[in-house]
Amino acid sequence: MTGVPSIDPRSGETVEIVAQETTTAEVDQLCQAALTAAAPLEDLGRDGRAALLISLADALEDAREQVVAIADRETGLGATRLNGELTRTTYQLRLFASVLTDGGYLEATVDHAGDTPMGPRPDLRRMLVPIGPVAVFGASNFPLAFSVPGGDTASALAAGCPVVVKAHGSHPATSQLVFDVLVEAARKAGAPDGTLGIVHGQQAGADLVAHPAIRAVGFTGSTAGARALLTIIEQRPDPIPFFGELSSLNPVVVTPAAAAQRAAQIGADFAASFTLGAGQFCTKPGLAFVPTGPDGDALVEAAQRAISAAEPMVLLNAGIAASYQRGTATLSGTPGLTPTASAGQSAPTGPPASADLPASVGQAAARSASGGSAPGEAVSAGSNVQAVSAGEPAPGALAGGGTGYFGTPTLLTATAADLPREATEECFGPVAVIARYDGEADLFAALATLPSSLTATVQRGPGETALPSELTRRLRPHAGRIIYDGYPTGVAVSWAQHHGGPWPATNTQHTSVGTSAIRRFLRPVTWQNAPADLLPEELRDEFDSIPRRVDGRFRPIP
Amino acid sequence: MTGVPSIDPRSGETVEIVAQETTTAEVDQLCQAALTAAAPLEDLGRDGRAALLISLADALEDAREQVVAIADRETGLGATRLNGELTRTTYQLRLFASVLTDGGYLEATVDHAGDTPMGPRPDLRRMLVPIGPVAVFGASNFPLAFSVPGGDTASALAAGCPVVVKAHGSHPATSQLVFDVLVEAARKAGAPDGTLGIVHGQQAGADLVAHPAIRAVGFTGSTAGARALLTIIEQRPDPIPFFGELSSLNPVVVTPAAAAQRAAQIGADFAASFTLGAGQFCTKPGLAFVPTGPDGDALVEAAQRAISAAEPMVLLNAGIAASYQRGTATLSGTPGLTPTASAGQSAPTGPPASADLPASVGQAAARSASGGSAPGEAVSAGSNVQAVSAGEPAPGALAGGGTGYFGTPTLLTATAADLPREATEECFGPVAVIARYDGEADLFAALATLPSSLTATVQRGPGETALPSELTRRLRPHAGRIIYDGYPTGVAVSWAQHHGGPWPATNTQHTSVGTSAIRRFLRPVTWQNAPADLLPEELRDEFDSIPRRVDGRFRPIP
Repeated sequence: MTGVPSIDPRSGETVEIVAQETTTAEVDQLCQAALTAAAPLEDLGRDGRAALLISLADALEDAREQVVAIADRETGLGATRLNGELTRTTYQLRLFASVLTDGGYLEATVDHAGDTPMGPRPDLRRMLVPIGPVAVFGASNFPLAFSVPGGDTASALAAGCPVVVKAHGSHPATSQLVFDVLVEAARKAGAPDGTLGIVHGQQAGADLVAHPAIRAVGFTGSTAGARALLTIIEQRPDPIPFFGELSSLNPVVVTPAAAAQRAAQIGADFAASFTLGAGQFCTKPGLAFVPTGPDGDALVEAAQRAISAAEPMVLLNAGIAASYQRGTATLSGTPGLTPTASAGQSAPTGPPASADLPASVGQAAARSASGGSAPGEAVSAGSNVQAVSAGEPAPGALAGGGTGYFGTPTLLTATAADLPREATEECFGPVAVIARYDGEADLFAALATLPSSLTATVQRGPGETALPSELTRRLRPHAGRIIYDGYPTGVAVSWAQHHGGPWPATNTQHTSVGTSAIRRFLRPVTWQNAPADLLPEELRDEFDSIPRRVDGRFRPIP
Repeated sequence: MTGVPSIDPRSGETVEIVAQETTTAEVDQLCQAALTAAAPLEDLGRDGRAALLISLADALEDAREQVVAIADRETGLGATRLNGELTRTTYQLRLFASVLTDGGYLEATVDHAGDTPMGPRPDLRRMLVPIGPVAVFGASNFPLAFSVPGGDTASALAAGCPVVVKAHGSHPATSQLVFDVLVEAARKAGAPDGTLGIVHGQQAGADLVAHPAIRAVGFTGSTAGARALLTIIEQRPDPIPFFGELSSLNPVVVTPAAAAQRAAQIGADFAASFTLGAGQFCTKPGLAFVPTGPDGDALVEAAQRAISAAEPMVLLNAGIAASYQRGTATLSGTPGLTPTASAGQSAPTGPPASADLPASVGQAAARSASGGSAPGEAVSAGSNVQAVSAGEPAPGALAGGGTGYFGTPTLLTATAADLPREATEECFGPVAVIARYDGEADLFAALATLPSSLTATVQRGPGETALPSELTRRLRPHAGRIIYDGYPTGVAVSWAQHHGGPWPATNTQHTSVGTSAIRRFLRPVTWQNAPADLLPEELRDEFDSIPRRVDGRFRPIP
């Protein structure tokens, strides 16, 4: 038996052993229980599952203080951010309850029997049904919103699928506590045993993905981790859908007109965005294109000032800290990339960093919080800095220093015309590259070399549309979300959100954030010439309380 | 250079060399052309692409006589069936034109900026956009409806994606002719060069799937073929979506009440359904569960009479004929499976087969044609028999006989309580197994051992709901379509159709038939805080001619 340690990233010390790693036999038991729960969970109906989700949200809210305290101790993300993330998580559960009430997600479609240009057509009725038990892999960087009670779990339960979560080793105590809270609430709400399960340990995760009862996987993590799980899935007799949210560079393009209008503002906001949450967001902007010339220079200087004034930031775990140290060392040593600022250096020009940072970061946080329904990503970067500088090991204690896991915010510059490949790969943590471009041809050529991302951002001048339009045309094939005059590090949970993108951003055509995330855990079924008694009620003729398509036409709710 | 032969399956002789196998360099050229066509094809807009699809349908209709003649010569499917399939194909193109006009497929969603329980939310607008160039693999058994001008091509073009088709080696002349017709029509309709491409040869298919410009694959074929292509995809630096329609057993359950009411009818109809198109449908019912006792006996005898009266049927190609001969030999030699009837034998009881067959088959065809908008699968089975018995090599010329590719319709029986694994695997061609069950426990236990399928069918008694309801509950997790009192071999093209199912039926949660097949070739994009000028028109505030969800509520078309 191997114990699962809960480690304080601020000290690097093991605080407790949370559990034992889940054995293969235990994984089997949990998956069987999930399979048994599938039919009764679906039978709760849309209203019953909506009530279940609301109960889970209420229970999580009731446990807020304890959850935030343990999560902060395990992640170092700070109480402000974690309170915001908990609010995001309960909001998400409640939003999926409203998705169930709305019912449009079922894509209910009725074609009555009739003549067609092809001859007679039978009565056909289609809607989406739950895919079956789902494995959810928690992410290190969101101990709540993308972990046990997060978006994958919320959308799978809403769909009617039991969930077995693989707890992330970075926050096992938080995972276990939240799981216990949810299980108790689910029981009280009348959900069947087996609706929720949890496993700890890497082998347990592999066992989970290989288990015949598991019908789909929701994953947020690295490309390498995804490739390993995909290999297991390909070896199944019945490969299953895998929804991976993986790696993202999130380029930002600043037009000359934008730089002319607000160079200092953009520089400071960009620095705040790429260091928000210690740069540990999948939407962290890792590369910005800035025009050459004095406006661009001013932008870079503002970013440098902000970064030089920042302090080392606590990172989530030893692996991320080590990988960040390696990654920044590689970047700094790459010909064509020039380290221009890192935390603790004095700013090359301009007012003292200490006077500048709080204001510009605060503004960026407010703008990022225009993704305000995404408080997990929208809290002030200041709270992270504070977590390091106040009350925790001496600033300057760096990753590998033995007293905790820290990373130094770092900014590098490059020339767009000669952009090293290293600058186009995600480096998780508070580091980014600014690439200077000289004219549109230079910019477009560099953009063509980028991998796809979850997001792409355009900073444009007042009323500017020509270049932004051309940039949109070029960026759209390689991004899931395009942001104008904002920053990508806020991801609102809403009906119109899309958190996805072509490989390596994800491996799917679906989102992991927002209401349509539910589509991942559903599959269509068509009933042909079924007597009304055998149809789900949503497909019967007289049913009219959800949006449906009937005989080819959308019918609104009367 | 290797020539691509067009072979007459009725004689086994090569009639012509259609083309040379496409080289790797030529595949590259075609894929680059497709990539270049992507933006202008999208820019045609929904109306422009609707007009394009209608032009393609018109051109195909104009070439009907020549297309059907060549397709018949290459496939042996007969003019009746092929005329029906061509009508299905043009109907399909026109239906996707109406999908474009409707616009609901875009899933257009607008969330205006505003306050939420999470704080301020930015303006978010989401819709689906074309995924990029698509590779389509033609199927052997539908030279039109699932090949060059088929459902994959129609839905991909509708989505706005250029298509490069891998022509199936079983009907290269048909593929090339139809391709030439479509390319000419597309040009006249204003589609950009590169909208359509075609490749011949197995290596060209592999090159196609590996090409960086290809963003998704539509495939109809064997599980082994799919696994091979998936391996290529996994080796890409950027794995892409693969939509495979693979293998299906399509179980049929006859309740005791159904057998009591209409044993002879069901027996004859079942025989007609599994021999329709020489059993070369993905929806062929390969296994029927029939109660023990006199009613069930009468059903089996009726099926035996029909099969004994049938004649050897022409199969599509040498590979299918050889595989069919191996498959039926394996089934016949498997302990627990009893061959009870094959074509040309006299019926064990009842009236002479020759008197019985045409009537019962005709009825089955009419019922199957309740999937009447699916004429490809809904033509009279008689036409296939006729194709063999009239004008072609002597009946009795079997597969491997040297004078063409033929298969003998075969029926086997088994006991549900001791059902061999071999009876649960698809065998392509006119063969099926009837498994006798003794009570519900016996039936349910056998059903639990089946792989998933595209379809499952329930034959029920008049007004019967209890057992059919329980069967629906048990069959639904393993099927994409559930048919009541009909047969699976008609697949209507409509809004509510679903042609899919869990592995091994497909590897996706999407359909390859019906209007929602378009979803495969689309991906979501969200615009955040975009000025109206930079939004697609379907996402602008004032646009109201398609169904959209605005601020969480479905808005019908005014």
